[in-house]
Amino acid sequence: MAMALHSVVCNGAAARCDEGTVQLQNGPQTQDSIIPVLTLSEVMTRLQEESKAGKYRGFRSMYSSVVGAITTDVAAMVIPLDDHMVHRGHSVFDTAVLINGYLYELDAHLDRFLRSAAKAKITPPVDQAAMREILLQTAAAAHCRDGILRYWLSCGRGGFELSTKGCDQATFYAIVLDENHVDDKFDCGVKVITTSVPIKPQDFATMKSTNYLPNALVLKEAEERGAYAGIWLDDEGFIAESQNMNVAFVSKDGNLLVPSFEKILSGCTARRILELVPQFIRDGAVPGLNGTEMKKISLEEAKDATEMMLIGSGMMIVPVVAWDDEPVGNGKPGPITLALWQLARQDMMEGPAGIRTEVNPQISG
Amino acid sequence: MAMALHSVVCNGAAARCDEGTVQLQNGPQTQDSIIPVLTLSEVMTRLQEESKAGKYRGFRSMYSSVVGAITTDVAAMVIPLDDHMVHRGHSVFDTAVLINGYLYELDAHLDRFLRSAAKAKITPPVDQAAMREILLQTAAAAHCRDGILRYWLSCGRGGFELSTKGCDQATFYAIVLDENHVDDKFDCGVKVITTSVPIKPQDFATMKSTNYLPNALVLKEAEERGAYAGIWLDDEGFIAESQNMNVAFVSKDGNLLVPSFEKILSGCTARRILELVPQFIRDGAVPGLNGTEMKKISLEEAKDATEMMLIGSGMMIVPVVAWDDEPVGNGKPGPITLALWQLARQDMMEGPAGIRTEVNPQISG
Repeated sequence: MAMALHSVVCNGAAARCDEGTVQLQNGPQTQDSIIPVLTLSEVMTRLQEESKAGKYRGFRSMYSSVVGAITTDVAAMVIPLDDHMVHRGHSVFDTAVLINGYLYELDAHLDRFLRSAAKAKITPPVDQAAMREILLQTAAAAHCRDGILRYWLSCGRGGFELSTKGCDQATFYAIVLDENHVDDKFDCGVKVITTSVPIKPQDFATMKSTNYLPNALVLKEAEERGAYAGIWLDDEGFIAESQNMNVAFVSKDGNLLVPSFEKILSGCTARRILELVPQFIRDGAVPGLNGTEMKKISLEEAKDATEMMLIGSGMMIVPVVAWDDEPVGNGKPGPITLALWQLARQDMMEGPAGIRTEVNPQISG
Repeated sequence: MAMALHSVVCNGAAARCDEGTVQLQNGPQTQDSIIPVLTLSEVMTRLQEESKAGKYRGFRSMYSSVVGAITTDVAAMVIPLDDHMVHRGHSVFDTAVLINGYLYELDAHLDRFLRSAAKAKITPPVDQAAMREILLQTAAAAHCRDGILRYWLSCGRGGFELSTKGCDQATFYAIVLDENHVDDKFDCGVKVITTSVPIKPQDFATMKSTNYLPNALVLKEAEERGAYAGIWLDDEGFIAESQNMNVAFVSKDGNLLVPSFEKILSGCTARRILELVPQFIRDGAVPGLNGTEMKKISLEEAKDATEMMLIGSGMMIVPVVAWDDEPVGNGKPGPITLALWQLARQDMMEGPAGIRTEVNPQISG
């Protein structure tokens, strides 16, 4: 029973049992011994070695309320295992794109973040203004002009039980990555499928919690089938959303159709576009676009649309050219979709002050 | 915009906005400055300070495949923020009770763990025998005779996108806590409610993923109403399970009724009890018990039962004496429930070798 682990590897202690001993399966660093028991500084040294990998280069700054500080050292971008965010998913999140030194729609995202927190029965440790300031300082410490800000609120540390009775205080985490997808080109459009993964119940689909396993499995299924996204239908068979973007259509009479947010996540970018469309129409900026409709959309109505698009805060708008292997419209990105993408992007770059929040690198410690 | 955070606290950087400055809301350590940007060693020092709190005393040993090692230092019991377990809940977990130096039903739990992993499309970094050995060594390093072992498998590190394309390898974590609830006394029984929180779709309810926000909210609702647990009904209105235990009943004709596992988590302890009952009946060990039935149980049939109990790996069996403020049976713990608890506990303490796995403290490094 007390057989030794013949080989232990750093980065995935990988071993295989074979005739009473446990042998190496994969991984580069081996040692003939039982699993080492390490001190804090030894663990940190290993995390430092790990963090040298190129894939972590974009992790610019992280804030953790557990330490009450920001760090720019990837090895220190950790969260205690006992945080209920880690082991129970009792947490919510949101994002904001950093572009040209400004955070786009930060307040709309923060408002949604706090609505999600209330639904998850998490009481933030500080108020919205203080969280906003923490996010701005974390962004400033990232010292990058373009990127993405992600942040989480958890019911906190307090043992491993399911109950939150042991959690003294909610925890707040944020990270800034120097990558974004605003300039990703989708000239050819993307394919989507209708997913076979069941949709979350309404109470949970309308909350941006970290319980994203269903969303991850929708995307995995789509990727396995060579598609970019999976489309969920709701419990009544109406169009819902994709794994992490809203979906919208252009009807034959030139209306932008967006599914009602009643049973899905309220999309900040979709809301912003709906807000802007009347002005676009007045300006004649989107030829062929006559109005918007937010309503329950049947599969039949959706499949009859001339254009289809995904809308989200990362990529703004992505044209869909095929759905379940059938072409959407003429099988090319639609002209209204492309015009909306252009205008949405312009709003992100040059929109009004209330929509864009400047990050001041001066405030970074 | 670049206003300074007047006060930042360690342990929940708590601040409140007031007339253009951000002020302390709560927390002991303050400093008049913007949020500090800390090095790795400074972050570790703060984690060490934090980890001195009494509530972490029971965290005995943790294994992390990221560092390929065990640690007994609470401050080092961390997980990288970018692990998809943290930010997407793309992970599964399981447990085993450590009692008198033996892990109870380790293999049944490990089997379920790997079934959950397969459903979540996570490929373990090592095989089952190697994982088992890692768990035994982690338990050995805990140097305690009684406790609970918890472990997680995640699709791994690989940035913050929803896609797992960037995840090189699954990660595996385990912790041993020197607390368990096997000896918790429920002489008076507990109250339960029927929960208003929607149940997970079948595909997800049958998988022990870390997407436990619905479960946490069921428990929170129960606690708010002075109850010990909430009972979920399934989509057809049949009895499902509680937030983290199976539920069972004793019918008027002396049958132990257990809801079918088709739409709920397959309970290891409930399975074990179903396996043992024929022997108990042959031995006359449970007067009044005539057999078992695993089936769809209507609310009407359940409410007509003479006894009700919760079954789980932590507490084994907990008698329920009131449900939605109505007494169950005569409102006292049922005799069959109490006899089963006694026998289940005996199986845990003295059951056959295949059921109990000895932890050898000799193998601890």
